[in-house]
Amino acid sequence: MFIKQSFVLLAQHASRSSKHIPPVKLSYKNMLKDPSSKYKPFIRPTLNKRNWPNNLITKAPRWLSTDLRDGNQSLPDPMSVEQKKEYFHKLVDIGFKEIEVSFPSASQTDFDFTRYAVENAPDDVTIQCLVQSREHLIKRTVEALTGAKRATVHTYLATSDMFRDIVFNMSKEEAIEKAVEATKLVRSLTKDDPTKQDTIWNYQFSPECFSDTPVEFAVEICEAVKNAWEPTVENPIIFNLPATVEVATPNIYADQIEYFSTHITEREKVCISTHTHNDRGCGVAASELGILAGADRVEGCLFGNGERTGNVDLVTVALNMYTQGIPPNLDFSDINSLIEVVERCNKIPVSPRAPYGGELVVCAFSGSHQDAIKKGFSVQEKRRAQGDKYWRIPYLPLDPKDIGRDYEAVIRVNSQSGKGGAAWVILRSLGLDLPRNMQIEFSNIVQDNADAIGKELQSGEISQLFKKTYNYNNESGSYISLLDYNVQKLDSERRIFSGQVEIAGEVVPIEGNGNGPISSFIDALSNLLNVKLGVANYAEHSIGSGSNTQAASYVHLTYRRYSDNEKAYKWGVGLSKDVGDASVQAILTTINNIIKSGEITLPKVQAAKKAGHA
Amino acid sequence: MFIKQSFVLLAQHASRSSKHIPPVKLSYKNMLKDPSSKYKPFIRPTLNKRNWPNNLITKAPRWLSTDLRDGNQSLPDPMSVEQKKEYFHKLVDIGFKEIEVSFPSASQTDFDFTRYAVENAPDDVTIQCLVQSREHLIKRTVEALTGAKRATVHTYLATSDMFRDIVFNMSKEEAIEKAVEATKLVRSLTKDDPTKQDTIWNYQFSPECFSDTPVEFAVEICEAVKNAWEPTVENPIIFNLPATVEVATPNIYADQIEYFSTHITEREKVCISTHTHNDRGCGVAASELGILAGADRVEGCLFGNGERTGNVDLVTVALNMYTQGIPPNLDFSDINSLIEVVERCNKIPVSPRAPYGGELVVCAFSGSHQDAIKKGFSVQEKRRAQGDKYWRIPYLPLDPKDIGRDYEAVIRVNSQSGKGGAAWVILRSLGLDLPRNMQIEFSNIVQDNADAIGKELQSGEISQLFKKTYNYNNESGSYISLLDYNVQKLDSERRIFSGQVEIAGEVVPIEGNGNGPISSFIDALSNLLNVKLGVANYAEHSIGSGSNTQAASYVHLTYRRYSDNEKAYKWGVGLSKDVGDASVQAILTTINNIIKSGEITLPKVQAAKKAGHA
Repeated sequence: MFIKQSFVLLAQHASRSSKHIPPVKLSYKNMLKDPSSKYKPFIRPTLNKRNWPNNLITKAPRWLSTDLRDGNQSLPDPMSVEQKKEYFHKLVDIGFKEIEVSFPSASQTDFDFTRYAVENAPDDVTIQCLVQSREHLIKRTVEALTGAKRATVHTYLATSDMFRDIVFNMSKEEAIEKAVEATKLVRSLTKDDPTKQDTIWNYQFSPECFSDTPVEFAVEICEAVKNAWEPTVENPIIFNLPATVEVATPNIYADQIEYFSTHITEREKVCISTHTHNDRGCGVAASELGILAGADRVEGCLFGNGERTGNVDLVTVALNMYTQGIPPNLDFSDINSLIEVVERCNKIPVSPRAPYGGELVVCAFSGSHQDAIKKGFSVQEKRRAQGDKYWRIPYLPLDPKDIGRDYEAVIRVNSQSGKGGAAWVILRSLGLDLPRNMQIEFSNIVQDNADAIGKELQSGEISQLFKKTYNYNNESGSYISLLDYNVQKLDSERRIFSGQVEIAGEVVPIEGNGNGPISSFIDALSNLLNVKLGVANYAEHSIGSGSNTQAASYVHLTYRRYSDNEKAYKWGVGLSKDVGDASVQAILTTINNIIKSGEITLPKVQAAKKAGHA
Repeated sequence: MFIKQSFVLLAQHASRSSKHIPPVKLSYKNMLKDPSSKYKPFIRPTLNKRNWPNNLITKAPRWLSTDLRDGNQSLPDPMSVEQKKEYFHKLVDIGFKEIEVSFPSASQTDFDFTRYAVENAPDDVTIQCLVQSREHLIKRTVEALTGAKRATVHTYLATSDMFRDIVFNMSKEEAIEKAVEATKLVRSLTKDDPTKQDTIWNYQFSPECFSDTPVEFAVEICEAVKNAWEPTVENPIIFNLPATVEVATPNIYADQIEYFSTHITEREKVCISTHTHNDRGCGVAASELGILAGADRVEGCLFGNGERTGNVDLVTVALNMYTQGIPPNLDFSDINSLIEVVERCNKIPVSPRAPYGGELVVCAFSGSHQDAIKKGFSVQEKRRAQGDKYWRIPYLPLDPKDIGRDYEAVIRVNSQSGKGGAAWVILRSLGLDLPRNMQIEFSNIVQDNADAIGKELQSGEISQLFKKTYNYNNESGSYISLLDYNVQKLDSERRIFSGQVEIAGEVVPIEGNGNGPISSFIDALSNLLNVKLGVANYAEHSIGSGSNTQAASYVHLTYRRYSDNEKAYKWGVGLSKDVGDASVQAILTTINNIIKSGEITLPKVQAAKKAGHA
C-alpha cells in the first residue's frame, strides 16, 4: 500500500514541485521594456457621483497606532518585551487613544505583552488586538484582553478575489458566513458576556485587502458583519478598509472609500478607518484623500514602519494637518526624543529626508533657498511687530521650533550654497549681520573652500574661516595696536584725531584730521603708513540688548597695494560696547590684516615716531 | 560725517538686528496643541469643472532627471566631478532623454561639468541648465550650453505672493516684465542666433513656487512668456509647475494643473511639467495626479533626492506605471547596480522601506503574508501552465526578478513569522517542500529559537536548525545504518523485507513483513528494536529534473517512548535517486534521531543478532 501511495504521491509531486521551486537562473532581462504582457492595470470602481475632491480636511481623525503589531511584525529584529513597553508608554504620552498592541493568539510573548498593556493602559486608551476569524484564536484573544477598560477585537478576512482564490479558496458566500460567525463569536465572548461588562468592547473588521476588493462586495460583507454585531451610535463598529497593498493611484482609494461611506447603511453607527501601505509611495496621500472621502479614523505607524514599504507615516499625516491650522491631537513637540525611541526600538533609521522628522528636511543648501529663508525671517519679524502672528517662511512650511528642532540646522553650507548660507552661520554663531557686499565676498571664500575639500563645511569651520579671513579681534595678526586716543572738535566740520599706537613694542604717536572721528583716524593711519587709505563702505549694528549690548562695525577699506600700486579693498569688523571704539577696532583689524598680507608694509618705528611728531 | 552716519546706522540696525537674530531660547512648548493661531490653511483654487479624477495614466510622460542639479545641490557632501560624470552616464543608460545637469552660472565647477555633459551626451539627450532671470547669468548659461545637440535653458521667477513679497519685493507687473525680458534674451542668444543653429534649443520657464501661486497669475505670466518665445508644435515650450514646497493635499495640486492645462492657450505648443517635492509626503501622488490632470512631463530625482524632503522619486513613479502594464521608458531592470551608484554618489542611503528599491520591500515577515505568497507562487505556476502569463502574487505588486532582485529575500523569518516562512527557506535552500504538518512543527521550533535570541534568523541558520532537528542525512546521529536489503513479493498483498544493518560495527540481519516495502521495513525495525513502530503520515516529491532528479520522502513515525510508554511522533526526511531508497532513508534517519533523543534504546547487538535470525 505504501509503495503504491508513494508512487502516486511522487507523480503528483513531480509535476507540482518542479513548478513550485521558482527557477533561480531564469533571466527576465529587458522585461521592463514591455510590462503589458505581465501586468494588468487595476480596474477602478465606477462612481455615479464623487464629492471628495471638493472637501477639505477640517479636523483630526481618530488615530490608531499599529506600531506594536504591524510595525513590530515586520522588523528584521522585533522589539524586546522591554522595548515594547517603552514604546507603548511613548505612544500614550504622544496622545494615542487607540493602540493595536499585538496578535496575542500567535505567541506567548504577544499574549503576555497584551496583558501588560491591558493592566497599564490609562482609562481612556483602547487596547486593540488582531486575530484571524478562527474560533480558538478568537477565544485566546478575548482572554488576553479581559479586564481592559476599553478593548477592540480586530478580525479580518480575505475578501479580494485574489486572496479568496489563492489563499483561502473560499467563495463570497463562504466568506460572509465565516465573517458573521466570527463576529457572533466575538460578541458572545465580549459585550454579550455578563461577566465582562466592566470593559467597553469595540469591534473592528477588516475586509482584506479592501483596495483590491470589489467595493460592492466590501459593502455586502460589512453589512452582514454590522448586523451580526449591532453597533450603536455611541459605540460604532469600526470598518477598517486596508490598502494592505497599494494597487492604484490614491484618488482611486478615495473613490473606494467614498463608495463605501455612501453605501453602508446606518452610517452613524459606523467608523470608517483607513489602513494604507506605501507600495506605490502614496500611503500618506491615500489616507488624506480617504479622510476627504469620509474616513473617520487613520491607522498607521510612526515614521511609516510596517510590512514592506511600511504603513502610512502618522507623524506626517498629523503634522500635515498641523501646518494647515488643524490641531492633530497628537503631540510631536519633542520629535527628537521620539525619533530616538523609534530608531532604537525598530533598529531602522528614520530617513534623512522623511517629512518633518528627517535630519535634512529643515535644511537648505541652495543659495537662493537660503537667501529666501533669511529674508523670510526678517520680514516675519516685521510682521510680528505689527501683530501678524502667522508663520510664513519660504521653504519652511513648519516652524522647526514647534517640533523641538532648532534653527541652527536650517541653513547648511556646501559648495553649492550662495551668499545667504555662510552669512546665516556667521549671524547665528558670532551675532554678526554682515553687510551684503561682505556676504558675497565671504560666501565666495566659503564656496572655494568647500569646493576644495569636496564636502559640507560645518558651522564651526565656517566661523573659523571667517575669523581667519577678517583677522577677527586681531587674532591672526596684530602689528599695530591703539593704546589711547582722543578726538578733538575744531568746529562743526573738522575733527582732529591724536593718539598713541604700539608697534613692535615701541609707542608711536599718530595724528590726523577729517570731518569725523573715523575719517580723522583714517587720516592718522595714512600718515603713519605713508599710504592713502579710504573707506568705501561702512555699516554698524547692535548685538544683544540691555547692559550687554555691543556695537559691531564693518569697514571696507581702500588702499594702494605696495607691490603694484593698484587700488585694493579689504573688509573688516570691530566690536565694542562703545560705538566709536567699534569703528576704530574695525579699521585697526583691517589694517593689521592688510599688513599681514604684505600689501602694505609696516613703517620703521623711528621714522614713524618722527612722522607722528611732525 | 562718518560718526553721524554711524549713529544713524546704529539706530537702524539696533531695531533690525534684535529682530533679525531669532531668539534661541524662546519656548514654543505645547504649540502643537493649537496651531490655528500660527498656521493658515491653504486657500485652494475654485474649479468650475474637474475631469482629472476620471482619468487614468495610460502612457509614460517625458522624464527629466534633476539629480545632478536639484539633487546634488541639496547634498551635505555634493558629488565630485568624477561622480557627476558617472551619475550622468548612468542616467543616460537608464534611458533619460532630458537631464538637468547644473546651474552653470553659479560656479566654475558647474560650468565645467556642463561642458562635459554637452560634449558627451548622445544625440537624443537634451542637456538642461537652470538659471535665474538675470542677464549676465543667462549669457553665461547659454555659453555653457553652446554646441549641444539639444539644450534646454530653464529660467525661473518668483510668482507666488510670498516669494514676490518676501524675497523679491516685486509686483505682478514687474514679474511679468522681468520674465518676458529674460525669455527674449534667451531667445536672442539661442534659437534666434544664426551662429547657434546646430543646436535644438528648448526653453523652460518655472513660475516659482507654482503650488503657492494664484493659478490665474501663473497662466497670465506663462502666456506672456509663451508669446515672447513663440514655441511650435514640434518644439513646445516647457512650463514647469513646481510644488517646490508642498502646501496642500495632492488633489489640490492636480486641480491647479488642470486649471493651467485648460486655460493656457495654444495648448499643443506647451509641454506641462510637474516638479513636486515631498514636504507633506505626497510627492509621488502629486506627480501622478498631475499627470491625470494633464501634465506631459515629470521632473524628479532617483530615490527622491533633493532639497529638504527631496524631489519626487522617479523610480517609484516609473515602476508604478510598469506594474499597471505601462512601459515607463526607463529601465530599472538592474536596480541593485543603480542603488549602488546612487548611494555612493549621494552619500545618502536608500531607505530600507523605499518603494521598489528598499532592502525590506520585497520581504514578508508576517506568517500570514508568507503563507499567502507561497500559495501565490504555487497557483501562479498552475495558471502559467494554462497560458495565463499575468503576475498575481499576494503582497508582491511587482515581480522582484523584473528589477533584478531575487526571491531569496522575499520571505524572511523573525519570531513573528508563521509556518510559511521557515518552510519557504527550506524549500529555497534544500529543495524540500515540507508536508503541511511538518511545516507547522518546524516553524514552531524556528519561532522559539528566534524568540530566544531576540532577532531574525538568517536562511543559513534556519537550514542548520532543520538539519539538526531532523537528523538530516544522519548528520547528527547514525546508530543504525542499512548495508543491504531486498523486498520479496509473496503475493499481491504481502511483502517480505530482509536485510543487514550495522550497529556499533557489527552486522545484524533484520527481517519483517507487510503489504509494501515501507510497512515491511517498519516491521523489521520494530522487531529489531522491540518497539511497535508505525507510519502516521507519508509524502514524497521529486527535486530537480532530468538525470539529476532526486526523490525526497517524508515520514511521520509513531512509537512508544521508552521512558513513559506514551505514544510519540517524529518527522524525518530521506533523499535518494531511487524512490524506494528515499523512503528507507527517511525511516532510518528518523529512527536514528529517536535513538539519539533517548526515547528508544539501541538493542544489544548480540540480542539483536539473535532476534534477526529468529
